[in-house]
Amino acid sequence: MKCNVITIVGLGLIGGSLLKALQGFDEAIFYGVDAKEEVVAKAKEQGLIQYCESNEKALMDADVVYVCLPPDAVPDFINNHQFKKGSLVTDVCGVKQTICDRITNPDVDFIGGHPMAGKEASGFDASDGELFKNASYLLTPTEHNQPEHIELLKRIIEYIGCRETVITNPKEHDEMIAYTSQLMHVVAIALCDNRQLDKAKSFSAGSLRDCTRVAKLDSKLWTQLFMHNKKELSNCIDVFEESMNKIKRFLQSEDAEGLQKYLEEISHRKQKFLA
Amino acid sequence: MKCNVITIVGLGLIGGSLLKALQGFDEAIFYGVDAKEEVVAKAKEQGLIQYCESNEKALMDADVVYVCLPPDAVPDFINNHQFKKGSLVTDVCGVKQTICDRITNPDVDFIGGHPMAGKEASGFDASDGELFKNASYLLTPTEHNQPEHIELLKRIIEYIGCRETVITNPKEHDEMIAYTSQLMHVVAIALCDNRQLDKAKSFSAGSLRDCTRVAKLDSKLWTQLFMHNKKELSNCIDVFEESMNKIKRFLQSEDAEGLQKYLEEISHRKQKFLA
Repeated sequence: MKCNVITIVGLGLIGGSLLKALQGFDEAIFYGVDAKEEVVAKAKEQGLIQYCESNEKALMDADVVYVCLPPDAVPDFINNHQFKKGSLVTDVCGVKQTICDRITNPDVDFIGGHPMAGKEASGFDASDGELFKNASYLLTPTEHNQPEHIELLKRIIEYIGCRETVITNPKEHDEMIAYTSQLMHVVAIALCDNRQLDKAKSFSAGSLRDCTRVAKLDSKLWTQLFMHNKKELSNCIDVFEESMNKIKRFLQSEDAEGLQKYLEEISHRKQKFLA
Repeated sequence: MKCNVITIVGLGLIGGSLLKALQGFDEAIFYGVDAKEEVVAKAKEQGLIQYCESNEKALMDADVVYVCLPPDAVPDFINNHQFKKGSLVTDVCGVKQTICDRITNPDVDFIGGHPMAGKEASGFDASDGELFKNASYLLTPTEHNQPEHIELLKRIIEYIGCRETVITNPKEHDEMIAYTSQLMHVVAIALCDNRQLDKAKSFSAGSLRDCTRVAKLDSKLWTQLFMHNKKELSNCIDVFEESMNKIKRFLQSEDAEGLQKYLEEISHRKQKFLA
């Protein structure tokens, strides 16, 4: 299907980056909605969106609406606004089960989405049309979604520069993200909760810097993401702690041979799967 | 003091990189010693070292000897070889207390050293004269060392491109390194000891990649480093686990407010000390 009007709700880092990356797609018209008037004005000045007389019209006219809001806000926004009947609505949240479960607006064809891209800065000013280059984009469609909407999203994902569309479901998504993303943020934070951090700079090379890079985070957003996925994340922390304890036992029992074998095995796994 | 002959023992990643970075220093002559004949031959072919009729002479003629061997090998090498009387001998090990304590050769003026530089590859072929650019270089001199030797090392450290010389002692060194380096490697390994790693690539952006970068490690070397510093490393793991448990408790008690406050506090600390 051809897309005539695309509306982005929430012109932060992800919404703004999508808006920039989508320019020119299907020669569509773009509308932007944001709680901050000045952000909408800036996007208009930059020629990224067109004038729209009201947010209501921006939603009602759109073939596709990207709701780029934090997890706590997404279901309410979609359930409490009017959209064009049968239109495609999608989100960009880092959790999917709690979002997908709570969307009840019968007018929209909702497909959960999650671009695996981000950076340490946030807000429209940090947005970047190249943000999705070579990223993976996760979708959680169901049998109830219009096939042409799934195809349209895949076409958009390719257009914005992603390397792949991954079709998954909310359960698998949340289990995997608890590991690949949330656990990494929890670990980075826990690594920085240490009095030795104060004088670490002179005593460190790259490993401290890399392992703690994501500890610079948006605490409000990440609290929501962690809380929406607390069961899976807790499980992930348990698995991780078991591995940490394994290493501690090697140290305490002075089992150098066992430790070396373990390090070698895991180091190989890492090279095999994350090369 | 001017330096006429510098000998590097162990032409691996660090030894080879030192040899390359040191070229031209004080117009000194360089000798290389390595268990692998072909590595010494290669260094000679590349014009990095001069011909020397024996390893004994390479050690006896040197004003400075860099012993770039793994921790288990350093004390024995220094104690069981003859050096020029009063000459400066230094090492590059990632642990210092067990090394410094065990060196008993009365002929040498030993100063422990540790350049905070490395990369995922190892061996002479991976060595790089730019490896130390902008790195920190840790030294653990004592009151027994010749002041001119400490000054010479500082001059070398500047010459090879380091950003700073940090004067510390073995105890502080090992406590700090347990945190800034060893804990990061333990965490990276533990993060990769997870069945979800197999399909993680499609579900991840940068955080998994960065947090696990150093899990590609030389298992033999790192086993020695961990074992030489097992008490400090175990303490570090304990402190880290307490922070992980703090986060788990926020999740389990659904204390979103407490979690957000904690994330914000630690995120600020990270930005303050690792900017």
